[in-house]
Amino acid sequence: MKVVVAIDSFKGSATSAELNQAVKTAVLSVFPKFNVETFEIADGGEGSVSALHSGLGGNFIDVETVDLMKRPMQASYLFLDHRLAVIEAAEVVGIDKIKPDEKTVQEATTFGLGALFLDAKKRGATEIVLSLGGSGTSDGGLGLLEALEGQDFSTIKITGLADVTNVYAGAEGYAKVFGKQKGGTAEILERQDRAAQAFVQKIKKERKIDLQEIPGTGAAGGLGGALVLLGGTLESGFGKIAELLKIEEAIKTADLIITGEGQMDFQTAKGKVPFGMAKLGAKYNVPTIAFCGSLPEDLGEMSKILLASYSIQRTVLPLEKAMCKEVTLKNIQFLTENVLKTWCHGHRR
Amino acid sequence: MKVVVAIDSFKGSATSAELNQAVKTAVLSVFPKFNVETFEIADGGEGSVSALHSGLGGNFIDVETVDLMKRPMQASYLFLDHRLAVIEAAEVVGIDKIKPDEKTVQEATTFGLGALFLDAKKRGATEIVLSLGGSGTSDGGLGLLEALEGQDFSTIKITGLADVTNVYAGAEGYAKVFGKQKGGTAEILERQDRAAQAFVQKIKKERKIDLQEIPGTGAAGGLGGALVLLGGTLESGFGKIAELLKIEEAIKTADLIITGEGQMDFQTAKGKVPFGMAKLGAKYNVPTIAFCGSLPEDLGEMSKILLASYSIQRTVLPLEKAMCKEVTLKNIQFLTENVLKTWCHGHRR
Repeated sequence: MKVVVAIDSFKGSATSAELNQAVKTAVLSVFPKFNVETFEIADGGEGSVSALHSGLGGNFIDVETVDLMKRPMQASYLFLDHRLAVIEAAEVVGIDKIKPDEKTVQEATTFGLGALFLDAKKRGATEIVLSLGGSGTSDGGLGLLEALEGQDFSTIKITGLADVTNVYAGAEGYAKVFGKQKGGTAEILERQDRAAQAFVQKIKKERKIDLQEIPGTGAAGGLGGALVLLGGTLESGFGKIAELLKIEEAIKTADLIITGEGQMDFQTAKGKVPFGMAKLGAKYNVPTIAFCGSLPEDLGEMSKILLASYSIQRTVLPLEKAMCKEVTLKNIQFLTENVLKTWCHGHRR
Repeated sequence: MKVVVAIDSFKGSATSAELNQAVKTAVLSVFPKFNVETFEIADGGEGSVSALHSGLGGNFIDVETVDLMKRPMQASYLFLDHRLAVIEAAEVVGIDKIKPDEKTVQEATTFGLGALFLDAKKRGATEIVLSLGGSGTSDGGLGLLEALEGQDFSTIKITGLADVTNVYAGAEGYAKVFGKQKGGTAEILERQDRAAQAFVQKIKKERKIDLQEIPGTGAAGGLGGALVLLGGTLESGFGKIAELLKIEEAIKTADLIITGEGQMDFQTAKGKVPFGMAKLGAKYNVPTIAFCGSLPEDLGEMSKILLASYSIQRTVLPLEKAMCKEVTLKNIQFLTENVLKTWCHGHRR
């Protein structure tokens, strides 16, 4: 029996790698002869670079640059096979670097990412992958465009990993949808959205590109749109990472897939890890089981595409204790043993 | 496929009957053609009379008597087939009727149970089953013996359902082990144990019965010992109830057993419902799965005898909310659907 394991991190509790390893240990403890293949995984946000590094190797390159408030910093990106640069936007412009307020929402800039793009170009990169999750910027990506002005990126394949499908401006645009959590007041966001609308019109006229037609251009405060203007495309984070890690190949010959995330709900079907894994499983008729920290009532489409979903909780604990890494890893190990025994009992009869 | 369902009550949350029904509904929702047989069950304590009534029918007989503090009360017992009387000791001498203190531990008496025994005898009962759990008495069963003095019970089969194996006196006796929770101070319990020791010697001499050799004589503050002196035997509650309900017959042709209890731990293997069900399952090679409200780390022997155990918790909730009946029944339904799909997937491949 071959089991493919790829669980997204349980944020604030355990990483993808730790969860995978706990599940692998548990499977082998009850069925020592099983073939268990694990993939550190992410959906394009936090953990994407780590997932690709763990699966594909590569080196981290350090670059002097500035963060979203233009404070000097050293950032690193992953360089693979002397050709593929993987950059996590949040490392330079992450919302965790600031206390979002009226000042940051207006001043935070994606300018600092430019240095990493230029360094990758200088080293001969032919492809740049930028994960867009977790940004603290709302600059429409104009900072990055400014940093790269006059540079030619047409020979480099650029892919933005978006975990949302919002467009650049309007009711579904970056200002109106994400601006508040980045510190914007209604007045500021109204002004930012008007600027975004104007930018959309300008680009439509000058470049014949309609940013409102491309899902994901509103990701990371409009940084998605900037990548499109650099000639890039926007993809679902899971899809691109799974492709690079060759997860589909592994699933073709699997008997069971184990996936999961911290909290699974109806939004999971909008491209998060368990949905992506279950879709691949369905393609090859391999059943997928999800293990989660929390399972709210409405699982939406997930309840149809998964063989089963389980919560790792074993008893009633205060949240802080339930999220403690040691508890989480013990619980997922116990659950795995029990689910595997249940699943395999049928096979052995 | 035939599934036998017998889950003990989750105390303070849902009854055995409610949990069984939720599981049955869930099994049929995913596999409408399955044959699901449910048994309301108990381990000899609370719920035993209800379980037997639900499985076997019978009528409740009301009797005027006195409670453990000699306050007048009306108690009822279950009368089956005009021959079997099932009495729950706690209905007359339950610890929930008092606030245990130095006075109650010395004065509480099993005397009031006598009226139920006499009523059953008068109606022609050939068998009396007395469930011993939950008593507030520490009278060594002397109250009951006093109430029945001069009566002949030799033609009536008496069975005490004990959920503990303690003996009458000494370190494992009723005073030393259970006296404290019934309100006893060290001094009182020392005195009570000395009296129990003396009683053991007296009985040994006069009746050639050694109460220290019979497990369960220390149950219900020594009430177990009194039943032995009336010519009765002490059995595990689950065993007797399962026998009366003919659960073993149902298991012989089952493909899967679902059992459970509120909190399963290493003590479960000392004769509680999930252990009893799993033992019967093992006898006929039928796998047993347990669903519980809470699963502490040390499951002891249970983890070997069960195919698998699951907690019904789906997320992190405050205890009060997690124990709410509606949440419990929804959770066990969700869990059942997922476990059944997991288990059956193997069968269908």
